[in-house]
Amino acid sequence: MYTLIIGNKNYSSWSLRPWLALRATGIAFSEQKLGFFTEEFSRKVAAVSPAGLVPVLLDGEFAVWDSLAICEYAADQHPDAGLWPKDAKARARARSLAAQMHSGFGALRNALPMNIEAHLPGIDMSEAVHADIQRMQALWRETREQFGHGGDFLFGAFSIADAFFAPVVSRFTTYDVPATGAVRDYMDAVLALPAMQEWTRDARAEATFVPEDEPYRKHR
Amino acid sequence: MYTLIIGNKNYSSWSLRPWLALRATGIAFSEQKLGFFTEEFSRKVAAVSPAGLVPVLLDGEFAVWDSLAICEYAADQHPDAGLWPKDAKARARARSLAAQMHSGFGALRNALPMNIEAHLPGIDMSEAVHADIQRMQALWRETREQFGHGGDFLFGAFSIADAFFAPVVSRFTTYDVPATGAVRDYMDAVLALPAMQEWTRDARAEATFVPEDEPYRKHR
Repeated sequence: MYTLIIGNKNYSSWSLRPWLALRATGIAFSEQKLGFFTEEFSRKVAAVSPAGLVPVLLDGEFAVWDSLAICEYAADQHPDAGLWPKDAKARARARSLAAQMHSGFGALRNALPMNIEAHLPGIDMSEAVHADIQRMQALWRETREQFGHGGDFLFGAFSIADAFFAPVVSRFTTYDVPATGAVRDYMDAVLALPAMQEWTRDARAEATFVPEDEPYRKHR
Repeated sequence: MYTLIIGNKNYSSWSLRPWLALRATGIAFSEQKLGFFTEEFSRKVAAVSPAGLVPVLLDGEFAVWDSLAICEYAADQHPDAGLWPKDAKARARARSLAAQMHSGFGALRNALPMNIEAHLPGIDMSEAVHADIQRMQALWRETREQFGHGGDFLFGAFSIADAFFAPVVSRFTTYDVPATGAVRDYMDAVLALPAMQEWTRDARAEATFVPEDEPYRKHR
């Protein structure tokens, strides 16, 4: 049985990725939530991962850390769950996109932290953030065009690539980033996933305000 | 036939990873080197990848970008090349390490850019860089202890995880980072790889000085 250790659902974009990948494909796991910047978080995460970060997946006592490595482990252990596209080229492209998200889009990530329950229109965004937004939306549009037939997601059916972009879909919603056409449709498909709605409900129900993740507010 | 598009061998740590993974496991490819900060680089990379970065692997006309996604594609296409460990848990751990390197160790990466032909002892390093170095060396030691039996690399035989840390081994050499015992032995094993020696020779033979990648020198 798997246990997925995660951070606050309102803020932890890295946690959302494997949580959504597992939940949306029906892989059973129990969840252990640890509040950011608490003593419990530091102690319990350090006990299982040298990276000291969430998410961590425990398979019995064996720890798999990093959002992408957890998704790959799940795909490895559950080859029929459809976590990656079946076609080799589509799968390669899905991995390019997930990896690009994993180490890139730094301007967007820093300026627009995930904050599911907030609505923060009108934030002043730098040129670099606007460029990241354009690049992201172009990537979604082009991928949908080339690989998206037969479904509403980037590669038709839901895959790990969508789990990796789900936090961005949430950010674009929080910060009212203009989205039209294929981009809007794609965002709506992600937001309509029952697993995404479950995570969103849980995030909204959290009462915790984490100042370190709130550059734009003093309270909820 | 594969073509791997890379940057300057002296500086491009991201290019070294898939290059080494392919070369060390005997997967044939041709190499296309583009100099950083040249018009040719921007034009040719933009034509094949929306990320605008190297490395990019071309399989015929199909582009796979990002160092990790390229390695996964090679592992997918060449399951007998031994790119990932065969044992499922070892493979999961190797992916955790590669992914941790892919998005982490920022202090170390920023302060100690890869610069193969340089020897730069005595650089003043921040607390954060020292912490990254300690964390990296502990990770190597613990992985060798738990998974390294039957070979000189992190998981015994060479794997993608070693390709991901090869640029760090090079940095520790350039900046004279103290290394003893199992850490020293591991570094020596990486540096002794014929593929690593080939890349190193090529890097030393490059005459190009790229000021953007040289925080500590004015010329070679």
